[in-house]
Amino acid sequence: MRQANVQLKSDRRVSILDAAERCFARSGFHGASMQDICAEAGMSPGNLYRYFPSKEAIISGICERNRAQAAEDFLAVDRAGGFFEGLAGLARYHLVDRPDEHAALCADIVAECRRNPQIARMHEEIERDVVARLVDMLRRAAERGEISAELDLEKAAAMLMVLGDGMSWRRMSDRTFDAQALLPYLMHMVRCLLTQPPRPDGADDKETPR
Amino acid sequence: MRQANVQLKSDRRVSILDAAERCFARSGFHGASMQDICAEAGMSPGNLYRYFPSKEAIISGICERNRAQAAEDFLAVDRAGGFFEGLAGLARYHLVDRPDEHAALCADIVAECRRNPQIARMHEEIERDVVARLVDMLRRAAERGEISAELDLEKAAAMLMVLGDGMSWRRMSDRTFDAQALLPYLMHMVRCLLTQPPRPDGADDKETPR
Repeated sequence: MRQANVQLKSDRRVSILDAAERCFARSGFHGASMQDICAEAGMSPGNLYRYFPSKEAIISGICERNRAQAAEDFLAVDRAGGFFEGLAGLARYHLVDRPDEHAALCADIVAECRRNPQIARMHEEIERDVVARLVDMLRRAAERGEISAELDLEKAAAMLMVLGDGMSWRRMSDRTFDAQALLPYLMHMVRCLLTQPPRPDGADDKETPR
Repeated sequence: MRQANVQLKSDRRVSILDAAERCFARSGFHGASMQDICAEAGMSPGNLYRYFPSKEAIISGICERNRAQAAEDFLAVDRAGGFFEGLAGLARYHLVDRPDEHAALCADIVAECRRNPQIARMHEEIERDVVARLVDMLRRAAERGEISAELDLEKAAAMLMVLGDGMSWRRMSDRTFDAQALLPYLMHMVRCLLTQPPRPDGADDKETPR
């Protein structure tokens, strides 16, 4: 295929995924039909099906795009003025500036995973990849001495995912949730996790049986 | 009504809510019908409708029960050997020991809130109450000197909700997520948040524009 054609095809894919995201945000994953997505993208069904043969394929395209974005974002942290400054910028973008609809779509996809093994496999593979890239980002920061060398990178990455998902989830489930006001608290906890990790024996975390 | 009748009515409500939770876990909130719930509870529709006239009423009953449980749990932390020990026990119960289905049901309820204003209002009111009780629990701990007196209690409570929701969400969206292994990390971050809160000016959290 000639270069111009490849570019055109890629642009079309982008505009279909954008249209689908708007439809899913409006009507949910189940409520939005392929016809709705065609109308929103201004394309005929015949044309759209050449790019994405099913709603699953569109969901998969959206998840792939998120994965690529995450990979790029984690690399960008390396190029920021400092690790925590870069991470704070990333947190602000994903957890404050980005519209609620994006988190709602992620929630729909996770709900869909419980019913649709094909989506579940795809989602799981992408999540694993995102976590692996997050671990790599932490490893590079540890090598530069910006975070603790004692840190269990896998566990720290899992906790960062917990924080990110928790912020997104609260935004969705509580309209009064003020993500912006909480950013300093979030970054404070992240800094504490990454620079003064808990002792591996967990000795300071005795608990009382409930 | 005589005392025995009141008790019988309350027991019936409990067994209907238990049955409904099992049905919702199996089939989702939309997939489970009132008939399914009747069958699971071993009751006739006529009888069940006397207790709960609709699926919304059942959802509301489940949320009310969760609210009462949360209120009791927060008070129990005061009676534990120490604040952090009590909190760690609570975290273990809710985030590790409790079956996944419970988190999945909460996710279904939040999804439902986006479509059903009646459920949304009820959910919001209950969330507000739970957060208020969490703030009270933190206030008592601050008065006992177990956490920092400088802490912004509302923001700290919001961050605890973020952590709890994030742990539940990760469990749902990643089958390899090991909540138990992360508990010491979680409690480490909680301790850091509550005993060395960030400075109010957030001066140590400059960020790089993305």
